[in-house]
Amino acid sequence: MKLKPYNKKLPVSYVLGVTTVLEILSSKPKLIYTVFLSTKIDNSLADKIIGLCKTHNVTFEFDNQTIERSAYKENTYAIAVIKKYNQNLDFNKNHLMLVNPSNMGNLGTIIRTCVAFDMKNIAIVRPACDIFDPKVISSSMGAIFNINFEYFESFDEYIDKSKSVSTREFYSFMLNGEASLKNLEFKSPFTLIFGNEGEGLDLKFKKETKSVFIPHSKEVDSLNLAVAVGIVLANLY
Amino acid sequence: MKLKPYNKKLPVSYVLGVTTVLEILSSKPKLIYTVFLSTKIDNSLADKIIGLCKTHNVTFEFDNQTIERSAYKENTYAIAVIKKYNQNLDFNKNHLMLVNPSNMGNLGTIIRTCVAFDMKNIAIVRPACDIFDPKVISSSMGAIFNINFEYFESFDEYIDKSKSVSTREFYSFMLNGEASLKNLEFKSPFTLIFGNEGEGLDLKFKKETKSVFIPHSKEVDSLNLAVAVGIVLANLY
Repeated sequence: MKLKPYNKKLPVSYVLGVTTVLEILSSKPKLIYTVFLSTKIDNSLADKIIGLCKTHNVTFEFDNQTIERSAYKENTYAIAVIKKYNQNLDFNKNHLMLVNPSNMGNLGTIIRTCVAFDMKNIAIVRPACDIFDPKVISSSMGAIFNINFEYFESFDEYIDKSKSVSTREFYSFMLNGEASLKNLEFKSPFTLIFGNEGEGLDLKFKKETKSVFIPHSKEVDSLNLAVAVGIVLANLY
Repeated sequence: MKLKPYNKKLPVSYVLGVTTVLEILSSKPKLIYTVFLSTKIDNSLADKIIGLCKTHNVTFEFDNQTIERSAYKENTYAIAVIKKYNQNLDFNKNHLMLVNPSNMGNLGTIIRTCVAFDMKNIAIVRPACDIFDPKVISSSMGAIFNINFEYFESFDEYIDKSKSVSTREFYSFMLNGEASLKNLEFKSPFTLIFGNEGEGLDLKFKKETKSVFIPHSKEVDSLNLAVAVGIVLANLY
């Protein structure tokens, strides 16, 4: 079988690497079309994967060529081909919103961090990178399968949808925010809004939402986005 | 002039990209041997860099070939060649210790996060990646020039050096730590110890230091290392 190189228009994506394949075989086996294994895989891990495939009626085959063509890292010994899916956010819960996230490794790390702090609903405002890109799945370590996510064309589209369901508070994290993270009382349900890695959030958010800053020294311009999200979520956990 | 591809045995390293070159020209011009510019650079930025070179008596030349050969990212329009240096930690201050850090992007992000929260002394226990690798410098966004760092062959070597100077507290961050970050009173001067991205810290640290955990859901195995460091430093800031 020949897998096409991943691109965002495909209806499938690839979960790369033994650890993440084991994770999805345990947590979301119904998403999986099929599994490919390399003959170089450690025997005991192959047995574990094959056992789970059998339990969940997932087909598998050994096929080194397919794996080498599809993986972007060396030493990838298992790939699961999964169906992509759409979800809707739960508007009774708290949300994290990412406006125009562009770095796939960062997006994966953020999703993993969200799951660590029970933030299970993530709104993504386009243009944005593709949450099903194998690089995002890998850097999330499979955590993307444990969240709800939904893409929006704009902040306004999100607001319209939100208003029809519940009254919420909006907190935007920006360098020149008005309130300090350390002193603020957050009211649920809320949406925590973070901008792009390079540009942050534009002024519109300062006007239309409660703006918040993370206290830090002026010696650096800004924090890494995933680090900033982690600090905020850990603070609220 | 032909620059050698970077390797850790060279006495020099390369600062890549206009933003970081501007940063080091302003903050640490004495470290710079020379600057290369691409003819594709925006004129106003070229003027800024050339102005700073003249002010600080740093030589510069336009040389697209050298830049293209030495940069690992496209659209790199400036490179500063700098001297590497050794430093010693200030044992009267608080320290962050990284045991066997192996990911260069993560190390750079951690250094940037340290500067953001005024943690200016970083101990690195070998084996570890090279703090002067251009990838570390880039992902630190030049923050490495605003810290003290020192490499140690082992934790024991660090302890020996430490004992001769001051009495300190040692806090090791591990998944099965005994104290929660949220309840602990940290006593200065202290050393915050973090393990490797993959393996964390070994049991020795649990026995010989105060072990601490960051409260999070059991749904993920662990936090990303840079995120974990950010949460701890923000909590103490």
